[in-house]
Amino acid sequence: MKQVWRSSRPQTSRGPRVRGPEEDHQRGGTVPPSWEELSIAPKERSPSSYGAEARGGCSGVPAGSAGSQLCQRGPGLRLYPTPRKGPSRATGARPRQSATRSEPLQSRLHGSTGLRSGSQANFFPPLEDAMLPSGSFNNRMALITGGGTGLGRAMTATLSQLGAQCIIASRKLDVLQRTAEEISSQTGNKVHAVQCDVRDPQAVSQCVDQIEALTGLPDVIINNAAGNFVCPSERLSPNAWKTITDIVLNGTAFVTLELGKRLIQNQKGASFLAITTIYAESGSGFVVPSASAKAGVEALYKSLAAEWGRYGHRFNIIQPGPIRTKGAFSRLDPTGAFEKAMIDRIPTGRLGTPAEIANLAAYVSSNYASWMSGAVIRFDGGEYVSLAGEFNELRSVTPDQWKLLEAMIRKTKGS
Amino acid sequence: MKQVWRSSRPQTSRGPRVRGPEEDHQRGGTVPPSWEELSIAPKERSPSSYGAEARGGCSGVPAGSAGSQLCQRGPGLRLYPTPRKGPSRATGARPRQSATRSEPLQSRLHGSTGLRSGSQANFFPPLEDAMLPSGSFNNRMALITGGGTGLGRAMTATLSQLGAQCIIASRKLDVLQRTAEEISSQTGNKVHAVQCDVRDPQAVSQCVDQIEALTGLPDVIINNAAGNFVCPSERLSPNAWKTITDIVLNGTAFVTLELGKRLIQNQKGASFLAITTIYAESGSGFVVPSASAKAGVEALYKSLAAEWGRYGHRFNIIQPGPIRTKGAFSRLDPTGAFEKAMIDRIPTGRLGTPAEIANLAAYVSSNYASWMSGAVIRFDGGEYVSLAGEFNELRSVTPDQWKLLEAMIRKTKGS
Amino acid sequence: MKQVWRSSRPQTSRGPRVRGPEEDHQRGGTVPPSWEELSIAPKERSPSSYGAEARGGCSGVPAGSAGSQLCQRGPGLRLYPTPRKGPSRATGARPRQSATRSEPLQSRLHGSTGLRSGSQANFFPPLEDAMLPSGSFNNRMALITGGGTGLGRAMTATLSQLGAQCIIASRKLDVLQRTAEEISSQTGNKVHAVQCDVRDPQAVSQCVDQIEALTGLPDVIINNAAGNFVCPSERLSPNAWKTITDIVLNGTAFVTLELGKRLIQNQKGASFLAITTIYAESGSGFVVPSASAKAGVEALYKSLAAEWGRYGHRFNIIQPGPIRTKGAFSRLDPTGAFEKAMIDRIPTGRLGTPAEIANLAAYVSSNYASWMSGAVIRFDGGEYVSLAGEFNELRSVTPDQWKLLEAMIRKTKGS
Amino acid sequence: MKQVWRSSRPQTSRGPRVRGPEEDHQRGGTVPPSWEELSIAPKERSPSSYGAEARGGCSGVPAGSAGSQLCQRGPGLRLYPTPRKGPSRATGARPRQSATRSEPLQSRLHGSTGLRSGSQANFFPPLEDAMLPSGSFNNRMALITGGGTGLGRAMTATLSQLGAQCIIASRKLDVLQRTAEEISSQTGNKVHAVQCDVRDPQAVSQCVDQIEALTGLPDVIINNAAGNFVCPSERLSPNAWKTITDIVLNGTAFVTLELGKRLIQNQKGASFLAITTIYAESGSGFVVPSASAKAGVEALYKSLAAEWGRYGHRFNIIQPGPIRTKGAFSRLDPTGAFEKAMIDRIPTGRLGTPAEIANLAAYVSSNYASWMSGAVIRFDGGEYVSLAGEFNELRSVTPDQWKLLEAMIRKTKGS
Repeated sequence: MKQVWRSSRPQTSRGPRVRGPEEDHQRGGTVPPSWEELSIAPKERSPSSYGAEARGGCSGVPAGSAGSQLCQRGPGLRLYPTPRKGPSRATGARPRQSATRSEPLQSRLHGSTGLRSGSQANFFPPLEDAMLPSGSFNNRMALITGGGTGLGRAMTATLSQLGAQCIIASRKLDVLQRTAEEISSQTGNKVHAVQCDVRDPQAVSQCVDQIEALTGLPDVIINNAAGNFVCPSERLSPNAWKTITDIVLNGTAFVTLELGKRLIQNQKGASFLAITTIYAESGSGFVVPSASAKAGVEALYKSLAAEWGRYGHRFNIIQPGPIRTKGAFSRLDPTGAFEKAMIDRIPTGRLGTPAEIANLAAYVSSNYASWMSGAVIRFDGGEYVSLAGEFNELRSVTPDQWKLLEAMIRKTKGS
Repeated sequence: MKQVWRSSRPQTSRGPRVRGPEEDHQRGGTVPPSWEELSIAPKERSPSSYGAEARGGCSGVPAGSAGSQLCQRGPGLRLYPTPRKGPSRATGARPRQSATRSEPLQSRLHGSTGLRSGSQANFFPPLEDAMLPSGSFNNRMALITGGGTGLGRAMTATLSQLGAQCIIASRKLDVLQRTAEEISSQTGNKVHAVQCDVRDPQAVSQCVDQIEALTGLPDVIINNAAGNFVCPSERLSPNAWKTITDIVLNGTAFVTLELGKRLIQNQKGASFLAITTIYAESGSGFVVPSASAKAGVEALYKSLAAEWGRYGHRFNIIQPGPIRTKGAFSRLDPTGAFEKAMIDRIPTGRLGTPAEIANLAAYVSSNYASWMSGAVIRFDGGEYVSLAGEFNELRSVTPDQWKLLEAMIRKTKGS
Repeated sequence: MKQVWRSSRPQTSRGPRVRGPEEDHQRGGTVPPSWEELSIAPKERSPSSYGAEARGGCSGVPAGSAGSQLCQRGPGLRLYPTPRKGPSRATGARPRQSATRSEPLQSRLHGSTGLRSGSQANFFPPLEDAMLPSGSFNNRMALITGGGTGLGRAMTATLSQLGAQCIIASRKLDVLQRTAEEISSQTGNKVHAVQCDVRDPQAVSQCVDQIEALTGLPDVIINNAAGNFVCPSERLSPNAWKTITDIVLNGTAFVTLELGKRLIQNQKGASFLAITTIYAESGSGFVVPSASAKAGVEALYKSLAAEWGRYGHRFNIIQPGPIRTKGAFSRLDPTGAFEKAMIDRIPTGRLGTPAEIANLAAYVSSNYASWMSGAVIRFDGGEYVSLAGEFNELRSVTPDQWKLLEAMIRKTKGS
Repeated sequence: MKQVWRSSRPQTSRGPRVRGPEEDHQRGGTVPPSWEELSIAPKERSPSSYGAEARGGCSGVPAGSAGSQLCQRGPGLRLYPTPRKGPSRATGARPRQSATRSEPLQSRLHGSTGLRSGSQANFFPPLEDAMLPSGSFNNRMALITGGGTGLGRAMTATLSQLGAQCIIASRKLDVLQRTAEEISSQTGNKVHAVQCDVRDPQAVSQCVDQIEALTGLPDVIINNAAGNFVCPSERLSPNAWKTITDIVLNGTAFVTLELGKRLIQNQKGASFLAITTIYAESGSGFVVPSASAKAGVEALYKSLAAEWGRYGHRFNIIQPGPIRTKGAFSRLDPTGAFEKAMIDRIPTGRLGTPAEIANLAAYVSSNYASWMSGAVIRFDGGEYVSLAGEFNELRSVTPDQWKLLEAMIRKTKGS
């Protein structure tokens, strides 16, 4: 496979370097992502923070908060991995490498744990360098909610690397501060940490006051704070329902409306981006509060794309599929069976990486996409179309079976 | 009731009676629907009920409540009209009318005010008889939220006429009771009024207790309670936002989850129907909280269609376009200019009627559609596709202009 | 199971009668639908009719023709079954039954073979009576392409029963004539058979000449002719591709444009309905030419809904899911494994019946839906949302596993 | 012009240069894009090439061919413009320029004619530099159908600049050769011109033979060939219909299937991209053949994304909105009224530029998007959501009117 891969994309001296999945297998020691990542309550959260309810069901299985480490977006798989400690890979092939762009930074920013992937994954190597020209976000302020961990952290790292001054906001100031320091020390650009519970309009307003004082109103806003858990709907309490919709839908609305009003008053344009999920349009059982709230967010952004263009604002949406993250609860999927089943139905044969999403988010937020508004970009390895198409399960029919089948049909025709 | 109904069904030789738009013009004296119907606060509501907010904007323009008379679904145009007093008339031009078919009941149940319509409306006469076979809902219990007024009232009337025992629920018990009595006296079937604020999970639970005591768990649930107002988004307060999403999204979820859990425990199947809007998918400026909340409702219903089929539940969605209603605020659109502009872009050249939506809702809720689940049915006179298609404004180019254009193009070709 | 069913929907004396799936099992002798139905070349077609191609692959596996018996719509499962010979079931419960409406007709028109269904199917009994009031299509002419067999035949039977004068068109005159006679003899209304290869614009024009001479231009047009086969795309020849798109997309366009032009010249309104498939929007592997052509048909109909409303025309779409049909090639799925897998993922636990689709088609084509245009109605037992939702496979997690999972999560939280 | 352009590029110290819309207004002398661009027959085509038909209507207004200059994608507005002659201007206000990145090449590749734009366009300056790191497509072969002119040319220029060896294909070899030479001389990378009528499967096969001989099978395939004209559907001949669907749908299928088969045989992965239009999903009157064919292309690509991932292939779609092009037929819109109306409804207040689309296409085709498959990316300045949302026309209500309205409502409440 490697042979084939190499022969069809000879990594000579000029194109950007790609990382083959086999590298991960060589690195070994990878903790597989786990079943529990599909669900689940964050390690660090305080169980009392959302209240519980007597009536059983998922009421006591609280949602992740904005910025919580494990409950984001559907699979909860989108954790931003801790930096890889190992030696950086050879980067000689990368033409963009320059004095002003230290490559090891990239690996510190976007290390990845091992990919467990289908064989076709060799064809779809993740390219994790920052894609945009260096300096693309110079003199721009970016606010990323839920920016302390996971995808939010990855997007912050990329924007910071590209020159933005970032503000990350969530409920957990300590997590934010740690992330801010780490990223800032690597990129050399300021990253501010601002505590904010997006569910509370007043807190949001105060948070924006703080932002205005720190950096002025942002040019780039990424609504990424989310919460989710997997649960049969008949086990959902009203409280569980509200916890998710308050964070995801109301939280996004409060942040967006508050910033929008102030930007309009200041006649300042901005790019808004919301991170949703591939099941926002189709809906999905077992993650129903998240599906509903995310669908609401998408309508909010499409609506404002139409209404607020006249004020200089753009609104776009990225729907990530399952993203590769650090396996935190490996007890629950020790054999990796669930992950394997998931990967089997992804046409590109692998999970996505935070850095890939971050590159797309940076593009959409940049002036290269200044004409993009009201767009909904699915980035999921093909999973959605693979699931939705009625006959896609026929991929399990073998070539020999197809031949047999065809022969039978031909014979039958004459009858 | 059967008697009455039957007498309206003699059905002679030529098919069901249709009402031509010209009838309305002959009746005269029609109060035109108004600009304000596009927006706004219900006459009867108490201004204090949702609280207000200091910061200006639409915060003080509260949303309609569940069952409120004027703030439902986008245009607020979907009020159930007061019975028509004027004489009905055979429309001789349409081949499918019958002089021998008197429908006193129908006109009492579904009177309509005058239609102001495009010329093509003659091709699309509303057929307002109950469509399903009489008795289709015998022995079935139906819950309709927001059933006291507007579309909810129309659907209640139709289900009751078809044999269902109905429960209507909203915050205003007096309105509900009046409606219940009126419909029941006409159909001969019981209609119960139950007060319920859908935004409050406990109130919902108590409401369902009451329903179980009255009729047992329902076979048919129609989530129709809604609130809306038209407002630039930069004038929306967090309070205004929450008012709408609490009613529309959380309210629908609380009712649906509570009933679902109990139905599952009782191993009883049911048909759930949500009434949303044509802008739930596309979003729309100026009605953003409603767009977002309705999008959430659609995701909720598609999700549960997938998840709860195994418990015998179906979930479907109707997206009504602008429905013809009684003009309550005619001051604001005295010339009818806004309505005319709206009708101009509707391919069928007219607004819909509550009875048409009610027939569709009855079908979807009946066993004729027992295989339908996860469906989203747009019923809007073609408005949505007309708006969305990039070149549809070329309908204003005249045939002569087309000829001219074509000639120019032909000439140019050779150059 | 029956018990449960009965207790929740006691079939007393008044509602329309429903048929439980268990009846079929009682009837026995059912030939299971088969794998090959998923694909397939029609028994009766001449293999040479579309030409073959040397290069291997599916080139020699020709598509079904308009009206062909086995290749229609995706699964090819939507065959209209041959009339059941067995005794009709008791119909005493049906309230609509009257002297003027002979019930045995229904069973002759819409007999069904046995349903193999999930246990929840008991909650979703198919209701196969004609739903609309008798005479709803009196004095109306209806053209149904592909009306000789399958779904087309079912829709023709229903419209004829409701008073329409029908014209059925396809390439096979003998099949058409047999169907026309059978239906006409049962309903008492004329059914005309007109030969037409929809792929040929001139043939279409001549066919419409014939129709004008026979009945005048139709009020109702149902574009149902289709062809399909299941095939890996790398085995598709250009010829195979064109065969399908010529029938499905070009054929529909030629019929629609020809009739449209003439109706416009005659200032006559009409209802157009296209039968597509649930994978037209999502696409699907292994049926790619059909997916593409059907998507084209949907865009055609949505476009004309916007453009031709001014001429009195409505355009709507029904997307059927897998429909129960007579098993013609039972060799290929002797164990019924494929059908079982398909049913397992349908939330309503069963396949659809031709009569159910026919009722919906009649509604959409009737004046009860005169305000409906540009609508796309999925009617698929919930299959689409079930496939598309990312987490729906979690339905295989048992309640005990959920409890276990929740406990683990709770424990983990504190760590 | 080169000079001027360059002088405007040093642009302060950091980040890529952006062009403000005001630049164009200063230049003056811009030929406005014209009505006829909305339609139209290409200047250079031979009128006899598609045949004509007697019956009137648009039969004699032939479609553009693959690669034709004026008939591409909906508006036909997406022509690649000739370089701007007027003086450029420094946009001191934009902070994101970079002295370290000189792009004279870019200006030669992607000059633009003047933008006539809404006032908010100042917020959304087009950024026309190549976005990806230089060398991103080194050692990669890219095939672009319709690559001789318009958007196709722009995408070719960008890929070539980024290191790809390009093959451009269409029917007009002379146009292709001119373009190939121009681009190649600027980028230093080979651009091959291959004649191909995509409507003819045999021609496609021979064309791929030629490509294999020239460069080997491509890594990147962009299906961009298209044809379109604006025409009332009742004036469409079957011939006009087929002309468009043959180019757009069948042409794309033939190219995609032929390349796919060979790539699969060679176990080589590839990225496929199709350029469609924002009205492919919604449909649109007056461009119906194009709408239908493009919808078919989208289904084809979504289907293959699911089916052929296992062979290493990705399939994605870009839906461009109206793109700024050279005004070729200014007679027809001398006042610019049509263009103004179009821009008025675009939230970003301007048309797109070919270079913006080219940057997105390069990203999607690169390994930065190696996990992207089955995506449909709308890039339209927000036009689609603006059109589709039911209440978006309320943007014409002024702030004073809103205040008045709100006051009236508040007064009414108490009544």
